[in-house]
Amino acid sequence: MTGTLYGIGVGPGAPDLLTLRAVALLGRLPVLAWPAPPDGAGMARTIAAAHIPAETLEIPIRLSFRPERDDTDGAYGAAAEAIAGHLVAGRDVGVLCEGDPLFFGSFIHLLDRLSGRFAVQVVPGLSSPMAAAAMAVRPLAQLEEAVAVLPATRPDHQLEPLLNAADSAVILKVGRHLPRLKALLARLDLLAHAVAVERATLAGQRIAPLAEVDELSYFSLVLVRR
Amino acid sequence: MTGTLYGIGVGPGAPDLLTLRAVALLGRLPVLAWPAPPDGAGMARTIAAAHIPAETLEIPIRLSFRPERDDTDGAYGAAAEAIAGHLVAGRDVGVLCEGDPLFFGSFIHLLDRLSGRFAVQVVPGLSSPMAAAAMAVRPLAQLEEAVAVLPATRPDHQLEPLLNAADSAVILKVGRHLPRLKALLARLDLLAHAVAVERATLAGQRIAPLAEVDELSYFSLVLVRR
Repeated sequence: MTGTLYGIGVGPGAPDLLTLRAVALLGRLPVLAWPAPPDGAGMARTIAAAHIPAETLEIPIRLSFRPERDDTDGAYGAAAEAIAGHLVAGRDVGVLCEGDPLFFGSFIHLLDRLSGRFAVQVVPGLSSPMAAAAMAVRPLAQLEEAVAVLPATRPDHQLEPLLNAADSAVILKVGRHLPRLKALLARLDLLAHAVAVERATLAGQRIAPLAEVDELSYFSLVLVRR
Repeated sequence: MTGTLYGIGVGPGAPDLLTLRAVALLGRLPVLAWPAPPDGAGMARTIAAAHIPAETLEIPIRLSFRPERDDTDGAYGAAAEAIAGHLVAGRDVGVLCEGDPLFFGSFIHLLDRLSGRFAVQVVPGLSSPMAAAAMAVRPLAQLEEAVAVLPATRPDHQLEPLLNAADSAVILKVGRHLPRLKALLARLDLLAHAVAVERATLAGQRIAPLAEVDELSYFSLVLVRR
């Protein structure tokens, strides 16, 4: 009997936004993998820390997070092999993921590599758009509205039709694209309806009208609603 | 000192997809309101049942859910007044909401009526797109992909540009719009990429290729990804 691979969403950052299902699973899984910077535990492991028993065998997936030396493929390839070894030996393995595992989640790298060979279950997690809207107390959408979720890394000519057709938009991965994004939203008459949310649910959370924001970290998002 | 209004997301249906924050709040709030059918407890209250103390004062918000006698406005107006009475008296009030309170959530009806007069906090909840994707073990989006969330109640000429521009789509409120939706997706060469998910995380859950589905309840959704 091979083990089951579990993708576990741990939510946007506040430890009490874990689900009961995630907590129960953390208490019983013998092996846990998590993405992390070159040193230390990383965000997902930090969020879940209180619920990981001391005897759990842990596999850090070390990523540089520096685009100029992209080691994502190598790191996930090596992690997939280590995880496969445990699954073949009959041990269930959990993979922690910030937010939700299947909504821009790093778990997809492992799902692509392992889902053909092993049983997979996913525990959904609270994702950043819902967390940011809750902290800002701003509706994302209601009734018949259409919502677009867009990475700011896409060029303007791809963002523009979606921003025009949707009633509400969530813009991810803003970072260095902030000046271009502000100019685009201003041109579409949407800048006055845009709010930036940084570090939603965490210490240092910041919520501000986008028009007043001049710098935004990569892990922020912008909410726009007409 | 007036009380605080809490919008509390209870997730898509499985009781263990509540967050720790929601559970803690349910244990201490003196007053709890929840949307419900003309008789009985309704889905949101059923999901949270195990965590509601016997001494909690409960306010059912009775809705007919029948479009031909839409009493939404009246029911939420009356509930807002009852809730305001408790808030003025200094009692915190929670409002349960299936899924997430601000993502197509019924809580928005009360937020619109009460946020000007009272402090409001929102506890985000797991929403149906993430729950459905997790149950189907299908990624919603990764990397630079754009996602559209669309109610099937919108006409084809409004759905089409969003379906064309997005890499991934979540289509809500399908119900009687199923034949039209299938025809539209077929015309856009997307039908083969569409999966229907009914009752995600609940007993009777059903996951099937949309092309093979001939009937779908209102509380289902369709996932499409190229």
